[in-house]
Amino acid sequence: MRNHEESRTPVTVIGLGLMGQALAGAFLREGHPTTVWNRTAAKAGQFVAQGAKLAGSVAEAVAASPLVVVCVTDYDAVRKLLEPLGEVVDGRVLVNLTSGTSQEARQTAEWAERQGAAYLDGAIMAIPQAIGTAEALVLYSGPRSAFDLHEPALRSLGAGMMHLSSDHGLSSLYDAAGLTLMWSVLNGFLHGAALLGAAGVDASTFASFARQNIGTVADWLPGYAQQIDDREYPAPDATIGTHLAAMEHLIHESEALGINADLPRFFKALGDRAVAEGRGGDGYAALVELFRGASEVRA
Amino acid sequence: MRNHEESRTPVTVIGLGLMGQALAGAFLREGHPTTVWNRTAAKAGQFVAQGAKLAGSVAEAVAASPLVVVCVTDYDAVRKLLEPLGEVVDGRVLVNLTSGTSQEARQTAEWAERQGAAYLDGAIMAIPQAIGTAEALVLYSGPRSAFDLHEPALRSLGAGMMHLSSDHGLSSLYDAAGLTLMWSVLNGFLHGAALLGAAGVDASTFASFARQNIGTVADWLPGYAQQIDDREYPAPDATIGTHLAAMEHLIHESEALGINADLPRFFKALGDRAVAEGRGGDGYAALVELFRGASEVRA
Repeated sequence: MRNHEESRTPVTVIGLGLMGQALAGAFLREGHPTTVWNRTAAKAGQFVAQGAKLAGSVAEAVAASPLVVVCVTDYDAVRKLLEPLGEVVDGRVLVNLTSGTSQEARQTAEWAERQGAAYLDGAIMAIPQAIGTAEALVLYSGPRSAFDLHEPALRSLGAGMMHLSSDHGLSSLYDAAGLTLMWSVLNGFLHGAALLGAAGVDASTFASFARQNIGTVADWLPGYAQQIDDREYPAPDATIGTHLAAMEHLIHESEALGINADLPRFFKALGDRAVAEGRGGDGYAALVELFRGASEVRA
Repeated sequence: MRNHEESRTPVTVIGLGLMGQALAGAFLREGHPTTVWNRTAAKAGQFVAQGAKLAGSVAEAVAASPLVVVCVTDYDAVRKLLEPLGEVVDGRVLVNLTSGTSQEARQTAEWAERQGAAYLDGAIMAIPQAIGTAEALVLYSGPRSAFDLHEPALRSLGAGMMHLSSDHGLSSLYDAAGLTLMWSVLNGFLHGAALLGAAGVDASTFASFARQNIGTVADWLPGYAQQIDDREYPAPDATIGTHLAAMEHLIHESEALGINADLPRFFKALGDRAVAEGRGGDGYAALVELFRGASEVRA
């Protein structure tokens, strides 16, 4: 056990919320000498019992390891914790897994690099329970050399890891894109479950149909992506105008069943606007032009 | 070829829009004696050249075959075509593949059954190009006996076929649920593509990430479905309150990039309302209770 630990990079975990706890637990399980710090020390007890060191201050925590992983509420909290530290971060690799925007990631990277730290921004695309398993996807952006140096340690958090780009903002952007997909799929499923539930079909029956349906639509994405990259939106299958007619059916169906119709109304508002912009004869992927713009689409 | 044709059920196809053309073509390819009718006869020419008979009237078309497939613009068109017919439909199996609501399907079923026809309402979950292939999913509802009788002929339209229920409205409802999933997934993909596009990531690169992400979320659906069926929404992973904080990040990210933020604003409006209804500590599936209700959720 001792030799095993000695071959592992010492790691510090700052922040022991649900996710931070999962991170610290995963490093400990893989035998990394682990130092932890949390705003309220009580949460550290279980990890100290497993062999972690509890740092008395953030500065002490950062000083303890060449690899420092931060996972706190938001970037305001990151700034409040790290900015007073000054040169103690010099020479460290800071890995920030706090959720935030790409702009916050890039700003934090600038600060860290001014202090002499290498900075990786990461996005955890997994629930805390999946950390350390093959299912946990963690995306990193920032200097490739820092990622390569600590890849074995970072792999402790999940086999599904990826270095995206030297642009520190990209992991946040992929996270954002993943979240918009997640809420989209979940809302569509919940609306569908409500529609079928009104006719007595249970959600578990719908779920297998939904998975098949979602898989079919997911298979169309590379084709739509090509259209988006080409900025050409042919409609060999259905035009936005055809979609709009079906969206009206869906609104009527929802209303007739007494089901909330705001989701199909939102779909239709997008379609109406595309038609108003002269895209009624284009394929559905042309709506990306609306998503690219900042003006509002109101249902 | 002649014997081959004689073993096949004669079929009539009413309506030769893009989808009707695909249906007629599939029946002809499988060797069914096929009669076609369309409001404008010109579209029938290519099928007559392949051996189809062109009926001079809707009544003649219906009289020509025991199995009559209707695929026109909407149920108003269905009614205008069929209601003047009277007893010519007696003893036929009418299969209506026109898109509409579950209520329209049930009303048309009542009319058809009063005339002595067996009525199946169907929903085509496929683009015209997929008709006749293994990819084409067609859902049927109505009397099981009528479906069983003509299953071999209906299989010509696509190997993925399913009889759902004797409730004539169910195929429309599944169609509606499939559409709400489809537009949900596509909008999420387009918003994600716009977000990543702002940082120079092309949509084709995003597409493979998106498919993986969508697959992960789809795998959660049976668990969420169980919660919906139990009407209990525990949150071992993330509460709606936690989701809301991430939705705010997504709005800020979109706004900072000059990307349309209406989709995440819609997500957040749903989450806000769930919190207002005391569900902030529940898991995401609790939002189904909002979808079940008819009142509006405005972003």
